[in-house]
Amino acid sequence: MEEIVVGLGERKYPIRIGCECARELGGQVRAALPRCDRLMVVTNPDIARLYAEPVLESLRATGLAVDLFEIPEGESSKCIAVLETIWDRLIRSGFTRQSALVALGGGVVGDVAGFAAATYMRGIDVVQVPTTLLAMVDSSVGGKTAVNHPLAKNIVGAFWQPRLVFMDIAFLRTLPVEEFRSGFAEVIKHGVIRDAEYFRFLEEDLDRIFALDGDTLGRVVRVSCEIKASVVEEDERESGLRAILNCGHTLGHAIEALGGYGEGSRHGEAVAVGMLAEARVAERLGLIDAESVARIQHLLERSGLPVRCPAFPVAEIVDRLKSDKKVRDGRVTFVLPSGIGWVATRNDVPRDLIAEILIEMGANSS
Amino acid sequence: MEEIVVGLGERKYPIRIGCECARELGGQVRAALPRCDRLMVVTNPDIARLYAEPVLESLRATGLAVDLFEIPEGESSKCIAVLETIWDRLIRSGFTRQSALVALGGGVVGDVAGFAAATYMRGIDVVQVPTTLLAMVDSSVGGKTAVNHPLAKNIVGAFWQPRLVFMDIAFLRTLPVEEFRSGFAEVIKHGVIRDAEYFRFLEEDLDRIFALDGDTLGRVVRVSCEIKASVVEEDERESGLRAILNCGHTLGHAIEALGGYGEGSRHGEAVAVGMLAEARVAERLGLIDAESVARIQHLLERSGLPVRCPAFPVAEIVDRLKSDKKVRDGRVTFVLPSGIGWVATRNDVPRDLIAEILIEMGANSS
Repeated sequence: MEEIVVGLGERKYPIRIGCECARELGGQVRAALPRCDRLMVVTNPDIARLYAEPVLESLRATGLAVDLFEIPEGESSKCIAVLETIWDRLIRSGFTRQSALVALGGGVVGDVAGFAAATYMRGIDVVQVPTTLLAMVDSSVGGKTAVNHPLAKNIVGAFWQPRLVFMDIAFLRTLPVEEFRSGFAEVIKHGVIRDAEYFRFLEEDLDRIFALDGDTLGRVVRVSCEIKASVVEEDERESGLRAILNCGHTLGHAIEALGGYGEGSRHGEAVAVGMLAEARVAERLGLIDAESVARIQHLLERSGLPVRCPAFPVAEIVDRLKSDKKVRDGRVTFVLPSGIGWVATRNDVPRDLIAEILIEMGANSS
Repeated sequence: MEEIVVGLGERKYPIRIGCECARELGGQVRAALPRCDRLMVVTNPDIARLYAEPVLESLRATGLAVDLFEIPEGESSKCIAVLETIWDRLIRSGFTRQSALVALGGGVVGDVAGFAAATYMRGIDVVQVPTTLLAMVDSSVGGKTAVNHPLAKNIVGAFWQPRLVFMDIAFLRTLPVEEFRSGFAEVIKHGVIRDAEYFRFLEEDLDRIFALDGDTLGRVVRVSCEIKASVVEEDERESGLRAILNCGHTLGHAIEALGGYGEGSRHGEAVAVGMLAEARVAERLGLIDAESVARIQHLLERSGLPVRCPAFPVAEIVDRLKSDKKVRDGRVTFVLPSGIGWVATRNDVPRDLIAEILIEMGANSS
């Protein structure tokens, strides 16, 4: 298995990436958590059906007691009520400060189980075992955990680094293509914000990636994790550089909040449109050339990601920007691509320019 | 005002102690949080009636917008439902990552507001303004925040250091004497675990302390904060040394959980009995001489704290020990005084010895 270390001082941890390596999980957890007394795997019924057996078997082979706890599938599980069911089970089953959670699933499972671990007894260990591309290249790395509130996404949470992130690329073979695509929007973003060579590799090897070729996919996961890890290392708590990961997300979140897309693919599709819209804003501000914007659009299109904005009233999208977590002194911060591999942070983007671009892309002008 | 710095690297913060200094709060908050955009004071109706006006006036004089949010009085407010009302208000009122909470009150307010700050937007700043002796010498310093679960106290929470702890000794003049006494059990504990000279000062100046003499009380708060700060500095996350603060608490929590005392004074009275019982256990194990145990008992008695165990069935008290957060490998860890100013950590205390001591002290043997 390949290893990437996320260097965060005393909170540093390894990301281990392999293919068909699920049976090695137990040994790796044992090595990462030598004092662990007990484990609880948190997952959802769909993932449990596919992977609970090998995962539990591998973990139990270490001699540790391992419980399984299922939360309902879907984004609606990212809520306080579900969090309370996890705390409740941990208390009733007598989990201690030496116990650990294993989050087996996509972003929802990782976020909820991660936040449960961050807060049970003021913090116990967590191992992230992402099963979706989005979770592998984005949410499982970096320690962001959270649940939603009816009024705002990810508004209650904690920065809580895992002790180990364990990725079996083979899990992606059972992932619905629209979910794979959603995760791929973040992969494209990594190229856009940080690595022109990686972007070119994605352009050149796109077919092999979508054919789930093991080596090519392994490289995607590895390079994206390296980019994510390097950003997190420099700015664990999102006080500066880490904001570059929000490229495409400022407008993307606003579009997502209005509910433009179906469950599952929603986030990536919103990020794709947001990233293209932000690239066009950057072009109008003279930050990026037209050819680079066209390359971004073309790669999104070839990946089956949307490049048109849903026909929401443009005023509603723009108003939504105000509730962004990155708002400061009433100004919205945008992370705009300033060339493939580079970004510029701007908080002076005129509201009218944003509206104009969104209307060009399909938003409703009335 | 006097200042003690809690040295925790990038999370270091000052404790400022004065008398009749409430009007200086605004300036100190401004200095501690230069980028703050807005404040919400969390308190309860009793404290608001006494102190909201000067506190709000001082904070608003800085030019910052300041909201007031009241949670119900009492330990029952340390729950998820009350936490949700705080999150809800923060979201609805548009608080940002640059906003901060001010916890104005005793341990309950500090714990709940502290945990709300630890989790809103994955962590915003909090200023602790303790109004009880217990909160001044114990809960406001060190960053432990938590809420209760019906099955376990302080089971869900976070380590979240404040940016400033601001103490006005004059607040103690309105504190009911039984609450003062409850906090004083922790003060005695500080002498027992760490500082023989301080213990002797408490013995000698007890009358002046209970007469609320400003200078003497100021010294108590300062020395206790110095002891607490020095322990927290060495072990922020309670992986080692910080456990010494649990002297008296292992048995104390078990007695408290069974509900031996009235609201308000409960914690300190349980800690007093727990501390004396643990001292007697230590004596039987040959760790401490009889004279030191007698001095501890005498100081507790003179302070009006109980030295008899409530008549609970001893088996129930001992069974309760199993749910202690410090249980490891099924063993209960005790922090036993081994002389005035010294402790020994032991996880090999025979269950029968504990039961015997508790029965001697008044527990029901049947």
